[in-house]
Amino acid sequence: MAPQYAPSLRSRLAPLLLILQTGFIIIAALCFETKETNKLDRKPFLHYYPEFQDVNVMVILGFGFLCTFPVRYGFSGSGFNLLVAIIATQWALILNGIDSWYNTKIIRIDLKSIIKAELCAVSALISIGSVLGKTNPVQLTPIALLEVTGFVLNEWLLQTLLKVRPPNSIMLLHVFGALFGLMLTWILYRDGSKQGFEKEKYDEKSGLFSMLGVVFLWMFWPSFNSVLVDDRTRLKAVCSTYLALAVSAVTAAALAVLSSPRGKLNLIQMQSCILSGGAAVGVSVSVVQQPWEAMALGFTAAILSTLGYRYLKTHLLIAFECHDTCAVLSTHGLPGLLGWLAQLVLQIKDCDDHTVAVRFAVFHICTLFTTVSLSLSMGTLTAFLLKWKFWRPPQNKKCFDDQAFWEFPNLVVRK
Amino acid sequence: MAPQYAPSLRSRLAPLLLILQTGFIIIAALCFETKETNKLDRKPFLHYYPEFQDVNVMVILGFGFLCTFPVRYGFSGSGFNLLVAIIATQWALILNGIDSWYNTKIIRIDLKSIIKAELCAVSALISIGSVLGKTNPVQLTPIALLEVTGFVLNEWLLQTLLKVRPPNSIMLLHVFGALFGLMLTWILYRDGSKQGFEKEKYDEKSGLFSMLGVVFLWMFWPSFNSVLVDDRTRLKAVCSTYLALAVSAVTAAALAVLSSPRGKLNLIQMQSCILSGGAAVGVSVSVVQQPWEAMALGFTAAILSTLGYRYLKTHLLIAFECHDTCAVLSTHGLPGLLGWLAQLVLQIKDCDDHTVAVRFAVFHICTLFTTVSLSLSMGTLTAFLLKWKFWRPPQNKKCFDDQAFWEFPNLVVRK
Amino acid sequence: MAPQYAPSLRSRLAPLLLILQTGFIIIAALCFETKETNKLDRKPFLHYYPEFQDVNVMVILGFGFLCTFPVRYGFSGSGFNLLVAIIATQWALILNGIDSWYNTKIIRIDLKSIIKAELCAVSALISIGSVLGKTNPVQLTPIALLEVTGFVLNEWLLQTLLKVRPPNSIMLLHVFGALFGLMLTWILYRDGSKQGFEKEKYDEKSGLFSMLGVVFLWMFWPSFNSVLVDDRTRLKAVCSTYLALAVSAVTAAALAVLSSPRGKLNLIQMQSCILSGGAAVGVSVSVVQQPWEAMALGFTAAILSTLGYRYLKTHLLIAFECHDTCAVLSTHGLPGLLGWLAQLVLQIKDCDDHTVAVRFAVFHICTLFTTVSLSLSMGTLTAFLLKWKFWRPPQNKKCFDDQAFWEFPNLVVRK
Repeated sequence: MAPQYAPSLRSRLAPLLLILQTGFIIIAALCFETKETNKLDRKPFLHYYPEFQDVNVMVILGFGFLCTFPVRYGFSGSGFNLLVAIIATQWALILNGIDSWYNTKIIRIDLKSIIKAELCAVSALISIGSVLGKTNPVQLTPIALLEVTGFVLNEWLLQTLLKVRPPNSIMLLHVFGALFGLMLTWILYRDGSKQGFEKEKYDEKSGLFSMLGVVFLWMFWPSFNSVLVDDRTRLKAVCSTYLALAVSAVTAAALAVLSSPRGKLNLIQMQSCILSGGAAVGVSVSVVQQPWEAMALGFTAAILSTLGYRYLKTHLLIAFECHDTCAVLSTHGLPGLLGWLAQLVLQIKDCDDHTVAVRFAVFHICTLFTTVSLSLSMGTLTAFLLKWKFWRPPQNKKCFDDQAFWEFPNLVVRK
Repeated sequence: MAPQYAPSLRSRLAPLLLILQTGFIIIAALCFETKETNKLDRKPFLHYYPEFQDVNVMVILGFGFLCTFPVRYGFSGSGFNLLVAIIATQWALILNGIDSWYNTKIIRIDLKSIIKAELCAVSALISIGSVLGKTNPVQLTPIALLEVTGFVLNEWLLQTLLKVRPPNSIMLLHVFGALFGLMLTWILYRDGSKQGFEKEKYDEKSGLFSMLGVVFLWMFWPSFNSVLVDDRTRLKAVCSTYLALAVSAVTAAALAVLSSPRGKLNLIQMQSCILSGGAAVGVSVSVVQQPWEAMALGFTAAILSTLGYRYLKTHLLIAFECHDTCAVLSTHGLPGLLGWLAQLVLQIKDCDDHTVAVRFAVFHICTLFTTVSLSLSMGTLTAFLLKWKFWRPPQNKKCFDDQAFWEFPNLVVRK
Repeated sequence: MAPQYAPSLRSRLAPLLLILQTGFIIIAALCFETKETNKLDRKPFLHYYPEFQDVNVMVILGFGFLCTFPVRYGFSGSGFNLLVAIIATQWALILNGIDSWYNTKIIRIDLKSIIKAELCAVSALISIGSVLGKTNPVQLTPIALLEVTGFVLNEWLLQTLLKVRPPNSIMLLHVFGALFGLMLTWILYRDGSKQGFEKEKYDEKSGLFSMLGVVFLWMFWPSFNSVLVDDRTRLKAVCSTYLALAVSAVTAAALAVLSSPRGKLNLIQMQSCILSGGAAVGVSVSVVQQPWEAMALGFTAAILSTLGYRYLKTHLLIAFECHDTCAVLSTHGLPGLLGWLAQLVLQIKDCDDHTVAVRFAVFHICTLFTTVSLSLSMGTLTAFLLKWKFWRPPQNKKCFDDQAFWEFPNLVVRK
């Protein structure tokens, strides 16, 4: 069983990664340049550094350990997340720099460009949550590359055609990532969905490892939402995100008990729902003015997210055979859509001029429409590409766990 | 057994949390306002942000994972800590703002007010350590609310009547939280104390999860002690805390071996004692001038804390049937009292004028007296309130573990 | 078995640590002084604080949890690392201050001096990785003291005789620590090497704990490499380190599959190799100008590190009976040497003047020669000192696991 699987990982993953990485280095040699700061004061450096590290922690540790709850997929959950994150970040660094390269023949590498690239990579990390425990690393590489390409294209379309400002367009990553991931898992794993619950098995310790990922995401989400907004509204973004997350955590606990048949809490459901406030405020961060607006948004996001986890997730599995392991739809998708709606409502509410309001609404609906269609079509494209035999090695049903991908020469086997 | 318990969690926890959270949002809509910074430079923001995140990590991750060592209470340890932390923080944000609301009709929300609220919440997090593994989340909510109320009242009394400066009064949270927690566990769980050691069982992995919480508390404690002091002494506060923690960690290891009957280290005891230097320096941070003073304080705190853990904790259990799961008395209570004493001694030592010294001593003793009496009386009040049947659902002795509170539909059961 | 071992830990570790700690406090009372900053602005404080905390997290958490993968040595891995880190840091604070004490009779304690002391302590943390699972804490104390002494002596020699600038000389800690550790394990544990693989056994959860340590090292390594360089090149150091680590992580995954007999990934090998780019860029941080240079360095470091892990480590064990538990040679030693070589090549390449280039090459080779000979000789000296019976209590082969050092009164024993 295992030897049947092993050769393909060797003959495909190794050359794929080596060629990709060599390509990135060659592009870097031709285009990349680190911005030299001549001034002695460190202001431009310190301006971003603490939040850069917070975002870094969210991307590598937060998303990585969030994916460790499946008891037989812990190594893969954290390891493959790191792999996808760094491939996607390098690719996003290149794609984000095309515009600047076109004008100046160099791509500047500084903290801001790395942060932007990491945010683009997050869209890919969200998507792979939906296929967690069902993919091999050979498949994850094209997912990372194609999703980032789609996301950067979407950003470019929004900024060029619809004049959406950069922090607003980039925050749609929650919607983009969730829908892309749903298409992937729907098209690729219809047969496997019967084993749905098997993939989500956790134990007392693996639940704590993913709790660790969740609290890191929860704690540093204010940095995530505020890092790209302009200086005047940065404090507001931090406070709004903090309050929304606090409210959604309390609400998620209440609703977990309410929606449970036996009146108990559900750790994996709560882990999904307590983060919903951060995504909702993230998408609408430019228009949330008052603390209570952020708190109400966190409250609504937790309700939506709980409904999504309990009912929509099961419904998708039964009706469409679409199995969403990490519940990315309820963690990122629905709260992201709520944030989009909140942005629309709050912006129109503040508008005195009727024409301007209608104009904004039309543009705002186009923004969502573009993002949704691009994520669904790129997700479909990627999924059909992955159906090509090259990416799908001969395998049997038990293949997608740590034993299939990782060597355990010195492992202690518990009897 | 479990179905008998479950309904109460559903019918009580869910409405309690939803009503509370809705109330908080309504109050926020009426009073909260995020401070607008007009200046383009980020100084006021960066001034607090890195330390804000460090305190945030201590509150959510540090205290949360510190409580994961009981092998059958890991989910509850980290999950309920998050719940108590965010309820207490929101409530403290409101209470701390009453004064400003009285004058200006708004409560400003900025990084400093959130940090202050989180520090108030820490007093509640300390207290719930003493009842860890013996409470249900329905009971934890009134504990969070009443303790924060008591703590803010104490702070107000100290600042108004005794003219104690804010950073000094808030650091008494270690003494307040520990004594409040002791009263709680003493009044509520006399019968349960026979199972004392049962609650503290840990295994190789749960011990490492709590070690993770401990190292985060250890690493970021300098931020905790320095975040509210004025700029001139901030560096001194950081260095003093760092050195005190370093010394108390070495001393705790030496004393753990010395006090063990078989000459071995005890992980849970060390986790409790290596943090003692931070609490001691925290309370006396305004007067510790020289590095060696901080180091000597760390040394003494570790001795006191070890004695407290080995002898006082057992004595309290046997003589008073008072079972302190997380040893909050030796981690926070005794080092806090030592810090108070150090503050008295160092302040008087520096005083040339005899009258001023006596006057200071009287005020300083009154400070402690107020804090101790208020924490003991609020603890007693809370404990008697919790004896009311509403908070204590029908239960049997085995009820207080993860199985009672958490759904495990997909759990892997180890045979 | 255990009682035979226990008394020695009591009679030796406790007095050793208490005497050492009391000595440190006395020296602190005579020499230490915290620098007073008179200015109201916090610039000098904020200048270092975020990176100070990142380095702190790497030293305490990163290296500590990196050592938790051996399944029967998790408590010791994280606990003893903390002990060695704080003893070494205090000792390095004193040694680094001798020069200033000689001139001004005080040793200033501020963030920069603590950071420098922690970097010196890292050399000791690297070395104890090679003897992980084979030492008792009584032995770890002299290792910490002697290694830091040797390292500070090496730094002083390089800076005084060879005019190497401080950030360059301190970064040779990777080479120094690895070679020191190799000598230790070679001389001390020739007999024990037969149990080599026994020491490296891990399970699904202990592998994740060490993954946690690895990602913290990975995330905060940019701070580690940039904290001591001057302000103009700080941004460049951060970006270079980030890119090198990203490349070495992708490359390490590719090579892990390629070098595995069954075409699978190996978690412990990857943990060792994905960090190699950070060490290589660290040593050459002052001359790496372009992003692609950093990326190429990360690529080469990962290749060297994988070869070292797969072939050199096994060869050392079989041919020389030298068992390197944490593979410090391939994680730190070889990438460190590569960084040294890169520094030589890049510096000469930029040199127009032939004489200057030759002069630089001679000095640069002397730098390495001094470091290598001092680390090897100090390692040999320490190892022979530890052969003295005082440090080696009566023991049997099974003694070096958590059961030998830690009390488990309340432990849940799995049947």
